[in-house]
Amino acid sequence: MTDQSARTVFVLNGPNLNLLGTREPEVYGTATLDDVRDLTEARAAQHGLAVEFRQSNHEGVLIDWIHEAREAAVGIVLNPGGFTHTSVAIRDALSAVEIPAVEVHLSNVHAREPFRHHSYLSPVVEAVIAGAGVHGYAYAVEQIAHLASED
Amino acid sequence: MTDQSARTVFVLNGPNLNLLGTREPEVYGTATLDDVRDLTEARAAQHGLAVEFRQSNHEGVLIDWIHEAREAAVGIVLNPGGFTHTSVAIRDALSAVEIPAVEVHLSNVHAREPFRHHSYLSPVVEAVIAGAGVHGYAYAVEQIAHLASED
Amino acid sequence: MTDQSARTVFVLNGPNLNLLGTREPEVYGTATLDDVRDLTEARAAQHGLAVEFRQSNHEGVLIDWIHEAREAAVGIVLNPGGFTHTSVAIRDALSAVEIPAVEVHLSNVHAREPFRHHSYLSPVVEAVIAGAGVHGYAYAVEQIAHLASED
Amino acid sequence: MTDQSARTVFVLNGPNLNLLGTREPEVYGTATLDDVRDLTEARAAQHGLAVEFRQSNHEGVLIDWIHEAREAAVGIVLNPGGFTHTSVAIRDALSAVEIPAVEVHLSNVHAREPFRHHSYLSPVVEAVIAGAGVHGYAYAVEQIAHLASED
Amino acid sequence: MTDQSARTVFVLNGPNLNLLGTREPEVYGTATLDDVRDLTEARAAQHGLAVEFRQSNHEGVLIDWIHEAREAAVGIVLNPGGFTHTSVAIRDALSAVEIPAVEVHLSNVHAREPFRHHSYLSPVVEAVIAGAGVHGYAYAVEQIAHLASED
Amino acid sequence: MTDQSARTVFVLNGPNLNLLGTREPEVYGTATLDDVRDLTEARAAQHGLAVEFRQSNHEGVLIDWIHEAREAAVGIVLNPGGFTHTSVAIRDALSAVEIPAVEVHLSNVHAREPFRHHSYLSPVVEAVIAGAGVHGYAYAVEQIAHLASED
Amino acid sequence: MTDQSARTVFVLNGPNLNLLGTREPEVYGTATLDDVRDLTEARAAQHGLAVEFRQSNHEGVLIDWIHEAREAAVGIVLNPGGFTHTSVAIRDALSAVEIPAVEVHLSNVHAREPFRHHSYLSPVVEAVIAGAGVHGYAYAVEQIAHLASED
Amino acid sequence: MTDQSARTVFVLNGPNLNLLGTREPEVYGTATLDDVRDLTEARAAQHGLAVEFRQSNHEGVLIDWIHEAREAAVGIVLNPGGFTHTSVAIRDALSAVEIPAVEVHLSNVHAREPFRHHSYLSPVVEAVIAGAGVHGYAYAVEQIAHLASED
Amino acid sequence: MTDQSARTVFVLNGPNLNLLGTREPEVYGTATLDDVRDLTEARAAQHGLAVEFRQSNHEGVLIDWIHEAREAAVGIVLNPGGFTHTSVAIRDALSAVEIPAVEVHLSNVHAREPFRHHSYLSPVVEAVIAGAGVHGYAYAVEQIAHLASED
Amino acid sequence: MTDQSARTVFVLNGPNLNLLGTREPEVYGTATLDDVRDLTEARAAQHGLAVEFRQSNHEGVLIDWIHEAREAAVGIVLNPGGFTHTSVAIRDALSAVEIPAVEVHLSNVHAREPFRHHSYLSPVVEAVIAGAGVHGYAYAVEQIAHLASED
Amino acid sequence: MTDQSARTVFVLNGPNLNLLGTREPEVYGTATLDDVRDLTEARAAQHGLAVEFRQSNHEGVLIDWIHEAREAAVGIVLNPGGFTHTSVAIRDALSAVEIPAVEVHLSNVHAREPFRHHSYLSPVVEAVIAGAGVHGYAYAVEQIAHLASED
Amino acid sequence: MTDQSARTVFVLNGPNLNLLGTREPEVYGTATLDDVRDLTEARAAQHGLAVEFRQSNHEGVLIDWIHEAREAAVGIVLNPGGFTHTSVAIRDALSAVEIPAVEVHLSNVHAREPFRHHSYLSPVVEAVIAGAGVHGYAYAVEQIAHLASED
Repeated sequence: MTDQSARTVFVLNGPNLNLLGTREPEVYGTATLDDVRDLTEARAAQHGLAVEFRQSNHEGVLIDWIHEAREAAVGIVLNPGGFTHTSVAIRDALSAVEIPAVEVHLSNVHAREPFRHHSYLSPVVEAVIAGAGVHGYAYAVEQIAHLASED
Repeated sequence: MTDQSARTVFVLNGPNLNLLGTREPEVYGTATLDDVRDLTEARAAQHGLAVEFRQSNHEGVLIDWIHEAREAAVGIVLNPGGFTHTSVAIRDALSAVEIPAVEVHLSNVHAREPFRHHSYLSPVVEAVIAGAGVHGYAYAVEQIAHLASED
Repeated sequence: MTDQSARTVFVLNGPNLNLLGTREPEVYGTATLDDVRDLTEARAAQHGLAVEFRQSNHEGVLIDWIHEAREAAVGIVLNPGGFTHTSVAIRDALSAVEIPAVEVHLSNVHAREPFRHHSYLSPVVEAVIAGAGVHGYAYAVEQIAHLASED
Repeated sequence: MTDQSARTVFVLNGPNLNLLGTREPEVYGTATLDDVRDLTEARAAQHGLAVEFRQSNHEGVLIDWIHEAREAAVGIVLNPGGFTHTSVAIRDALSAVEIPAVEVHLSNVHAREPFRHHSYLSPVVEAVIAGAGVHGYAYAVEQIAHLASED
Repeated sequence: MTDQSARTVFVLNGPNLNLLGTREPEVYGTATLDDVRDLTEARAAQHGLAVEFRQSNHEGVLIDWIHEAREAAVGIVLNPGGFTHTSVAIRDALSAVEIPAVEVHLSNVHAREPFRHHSYLSPVVEAVIAGAGVHGYAYAVEQIAHLASED
Repeated sequence: MTDQSARTVFVLNGPNLNLLGTREPEVYGTATLDDVRDLTEARAAQHGLAVEFRQSNHEGVLIDWIHEAREAAVGIVLNPGGFTHTSVAIRDALSAVEIPAVEVHLSNVHAREPFRHHSYLSPVVEAVIAGAGVHGYAYAVEQIAHLASED
Repeated sequence: MTDQSARTVFVLNGPNLNLLGTREPEVYGTATLDDVRDLTEARAAQHGLAVEFRQSNHEGVLIDWIHEAREAAVGIVLNPGGFTHTSVAIRDALSAVEIPAVEVHLSNVHAREPFRHHSYLSPVVEAVIAGAGVHGYAYAVEQIAHLASED
Repeated sequence: MTDQSARTVFVLNGPNLNLLGTREPEVYGTATLDDVRDLTEARAAQHGLAVEFRQSNHEGVLIDWIHEAREAAVGIVLNPGGFTHTSVAIRDALSAVEIPAVEVHLSNVHAREPFRHHSYLSPVVEAVIAGAGVHGYAYAVEQIAHLASED
Repeated sequence: MTDQSARTVFVLNGPNLNLLGTREPEVYGTATLDDVRDLTEARAAQHGLAVEFRQSNHEGVLIDWIHEAREAAVGIVLNPGGFTHTSVAIRDALSAVEIPAVEVHLSNVHAREPFRHHSYLSPVVEAVIAGAGVHGYAYAVEQIAHLASED
Repeated sequence: MTDQSARTVFVLNGPNLNLLGTREPEVYGTATLDDVRDLTEARAAQHGLAVEFRQSNHEGVLIDWIHEAREAAVGIVLNPGGFTHTSVAIRDALSAVEIPAVEVHLSNVHAREPFRHHSYLSPVVEAVIAGAGVHGYAYAVEQIAHLASED
Repeated sequence: MTDQSARTVFVLNGPNLNLLGTREPEVYGTATLDDVRDLTEARAAQHGLAVEFRQSNHEGVLIDWIHEAREAAVGIVLNPGGFTHTSVAIRDALSAVEIPAVEVHLSNVHAREPFRHHSYLSPVVEAVIAGAGVHGYAYAVEQIAHLASED
Repeated sequence: MTDQSARTVFVLNGPNLNLLGTREPEVYGTATLDDVRDLTEARAAQHGLAVEFRQSNHEGVLIDWIHEAREAAVGIVLNPGGFTHTSVAIRDALSAVEIPAVEVHLSNVHAREPFRHHSYLSPVVEAVIAGAGVHGYAYAVEQIAHLASED
């Protein structure tokens, strides 16, 4: 692991999050994904970390990025969007890399449709934060910092 | 919304529909996807609409196109193929765009394997048409025309 | 089959559809059953077909009519109402007659209570159309016309 | 109970059995309901019993007849057709009359669709005979004779 | 609504209740349906209401009566018998009329077979009373009176 | 049993009912628990009964009170609140005392979340009344009076 | 097939049937297995058939006998006892031999514990007779005779 | 709401959390509940809030405290321990108070036994944080601060 | 661990067991809880152990006692009554203390209602004894003695 | 029943128990089946009973032995091994004999795979003891002695 | 382990496989069990192994053979036939012996009836091969050879 | 089909298999995907076949390749990774091409999490091989050779 990777958190966003701020604001709020990036970088900076912030609607791209994080990051913050409930492949990718991950959901998925109550990913990540809106990203980054400093 | 988008229907086809006409004709019939395009354009023209007709085997590409339709179309006709039963991400994309969508299946999915009886998409579209073969596309386009003229 | 039967479509409506237009208009719309009859006859006429249009709240009467259609019609358009989800007897009646049937629902049953997601009838009809409002009847009649002309 | 009722078996047939012999002969055989009546009367006569043989597509009519049998018969042979799987009301009618009943199915319902494997009626009848074709009626009448003579 | 309808409660009884008092008295008690009518009318009179008291073994007839009550009554007391657990059509009829309804069961259905624990009707009525024997009708009528006076 | 106990009904209220009138009035109404006490005592007095009216948020306290009622009351009216769906211990307490009990719910639990449709208590009480608002308590007390006078 | 095999029915009895007549007579009656043999042979003789009558508590022995019947019998009457609900191996044996089989149960298994409602064997036999007591064997043998004469 | 209540967060801990630090440290870590109090107060102070920190093994006591918080706090941080999965009564208490609540679990409950995957409370709280160890309390308090400042 | 604690077994009884001997004797027998105490102490004495014998209807009290046993006893015999099937909190308490526990039920819970077949506690205790009546306590105490002497 | 049978307990062991002591000792312990025999005989002798101790891997043999015990023993101690979860035939054998039986499992089956949580046998035996290792046999024999002396 | 056992693979065949080649050839093919033996021995010889090839319709015999293999073989190839889906006892036998086992099915069980999709044995064997016809035995023997050479 | 395609097997690897050898070696072993390629090509060569060996983390790419194989290969060996359990689209692709496919899993999926026990693909492939490690690929290629030579 390089010095750079030891200081970087991958913050990966799944499908439809590119529409954040315009999509169903009563569910997801009015902040945009750029706002989330700013907020996330600020909290990361408090803990001496940099952020690599990305979004894709493609499951395979997210898997590729998780593989990339293996060498390039101290941890992953992942908002998997709809793949949360359907992707064993992303689960396997998270299991395959040794760095810690935190799963974030903007809305409280437990208060929505029943199929959103189950996550294939939760059993293989360190922590899960749901319903805290954009602040959830900040907590997740802080948690990666705590986990990284424990090693 | 531009004039053009106000006159366009996106007709999106999911995985394996590129094989239409050659794949399991006893289930899906002998018409090809080009035949479907012709039939769909003809019905759209009767209602003063143009058709943007596409096919992809990639879930992420379909999501990108649904996002694109948001600005570029009055409605979406979607034959989601196998993603019908497995894609929460496409469901979320349909929810995120405000334009109406109609779900079409060539075969009567209710008469096939039990896992085809459940659709993640049906609860967020306007209408569902199954088992009407290629004619289902025509009805779906007509329905988009009715919904568009109601606004 | 007589010439008359070769030109007739039975359009059968199940329980509570007599209240159409006054019952829960936010779910079922404001068109009355007479409006549906007119619309259905118009589309049938475009395809050279006549319509026999009936409604009953009695399961047994619907079964009697389906038996009658066997000799008297080229196909059946059926809006089974609440019997959709509970009647094996109507399913057996549809299986027993050799003419094609199309199942129609005014509302998108897939977006309503879970018990409305299952239909005993769908596996034995040719096609299912849900959520297209009164237009669904027109599509169903047109589909019967296509099926009849294929023989 | 009159002498007449002490010698009569009600043989009641549910929905779609009026089509017997013409409906799906690969499932139900080619004998008509009149053939079944003859066969049933012959076996009943061997045991000194008369047969009251009826058919209806109406659940309520079948319930009325079961109530009537209470005073007018020594037992009931019932082929409930599709109501087998859906009618708690017929079950309650059978429970309410004290005379024995035998449930008959022409086809082997256990070898067909899963929803045909459950009968609301079987737990409240004396015996169940399935898959023996028209002979099943003869066995059922004979069984009523045995049960009647045991009293 | 006429003055008469403003003063009338429909008390509708479903299948097998015509046998009340003679059918399984250990479950349903020894009072007859005429006794229930007397008791119901007495309680209604205390609240200035008249009773229209009916019974049928036919699902379709019950639906017809519920439709009739829409114009002719301030509320419905319904003992649906076995249709409780199987009739979506009656549920839809109750939803379609705007007047309040109370569901009554003589026995405690929750202490009986599991299939009696589920009611299609309970979610669309105002109140449910089970196990209070014939007194349950009195409470139901009184509750209709309270609901009517609230308007 | 003393004369006093022969004239007393225990009316026991479970968790959160102390907030009645202020808590979610759209679900539970605006009457307070004191209002319920008054209404209950009035109906009891009509039948020559006194009321012992209590509330607790503690499952163990409710069990202790049910035990106490065994010697001190002719019957129990119980609104178990959220313990309805989770407490086998209260069920066992009700089974252990020989006096009759009636279960009351202010709201129509059958029209709410699915987990509220199941009650551990209903199978061991005499009657269940749901959705009749505060009047349900009056009916329950009256029913205890009927049951007590039957002995 | 020899002349002898063309005239023989195998009547095979599963576990615990050796205790018949002494075991739980309120469920299984007082006739012994010898009585059943006599009754079965009598009915077989009426149809020109002989009976090979056996009992075993061993699943493997029953499978061996079913294999043997393949060459030695025109059909099998099988009372599988408790293996009904648990033996895929006996099902496979019945599927492997081409001769018809009838499944018999002395008691009405549908009125007993839920696990007795499912039979692994019913889908692969010709007919199922339950609850007719020892007479069920007679009907089963007669049915084998009908099936044999149809060939 | 007093000035004091406007500045206070209730941090409530459920059963067995008094053993924190000594109980199964491989699951729950080595920090004690006093450590959690300190950490929580520190984060609260950063946001101008005070903490009322309590623990109980009694469901009823937790309900009483939630009721108390209604007047005395701006929000609730709740680690419900084992009551998470079994207490409808606590759910109802949280619904009854208007202030926001955040649910915290020290361990990642989604990676443990299946019965820990379901929470009765999650659908009625604002946010859920699991698996972040003692830091989860800090995030929860911060989230209460964000929610309070939004009003 | 003190000398005293090394010689003491906690025998803890859950809800409704205070009624033992008077409550449903056909299920639970006629011995009282005092009888059980005597029998338990006698068997304990044979193995050089003393008994601390308690009963409570309060889940929280039982949890407190289990915590207390951690320092004060060599093992726990627990008859959890109705909490068996509903208390994750007691399960967690048993997991949190290192001493062995044996779960006892007077009746054969496996022969009763289905909800009594599942125990939250059984997976975290050493042994489970059900249906042995009051003798079950003696076996449980003896088993604690064996487990204690193995250390 | 002879004097000998009045003094004998059948202790029957099912499949794979012949390997005891060598098979998965971390699950089943290091005692051999001979050790179990000695321990069982010693406890039986204390209660004036003899032991007939047997093992078989064959379901049919176990059924034969249970039948034999009917005349030859005062009770049965049965460790059914894997047949616990799959054998209705052994359940029926236990029901068919009138003498009491106790089911024993060396390991705590409730703490193992879910399919081991269900026993076909438990509902028809007197008592169930699991997880007490070889001592469980001693308790079971003692329980048979108590049950025998009650007669 | 002797030299001989170090060179031997047990190939064990379950119920109905003695009929191979004559039983349902459209499912199982036309090769006989002798053909399978030859093919298996040939592949084993390529890897320096001998084959002990057996078949039984008796579950107990298969268990005995698995126990025997413990000392006499380097591994087991098992085609368990119908016992695959029903035998916990065979599973336990496989767990009890330390040598590796491979489960083989001639047909693709996953494409057949749902009850064939679950195997009690698969979780305790090394590998599972289904649908490769008789070649599956060759692969299984080769896999045993690879596993044996790894030790 | 060209000569080349008649000699080629497509060996397609799904998500995360690019990490083979470094990812969870206790589950998947230490061989890399290059090792698998070598081993696969060697076995293919023995049967006169060439191998087209590919890997992708993208579901859509795998579907494209399966379509390509239709013209370019005699069969497909597919290790679908996590898509096994979630992809109806890949299932439909396999159904759409007429060439045989064999499904391979390195680990014994049946011994892992329950969600890995179900495969959408198994019902539409010829054979399934799981748990044989890298050797499974060799068996799969050999099986394709057998299937190709049968035509």
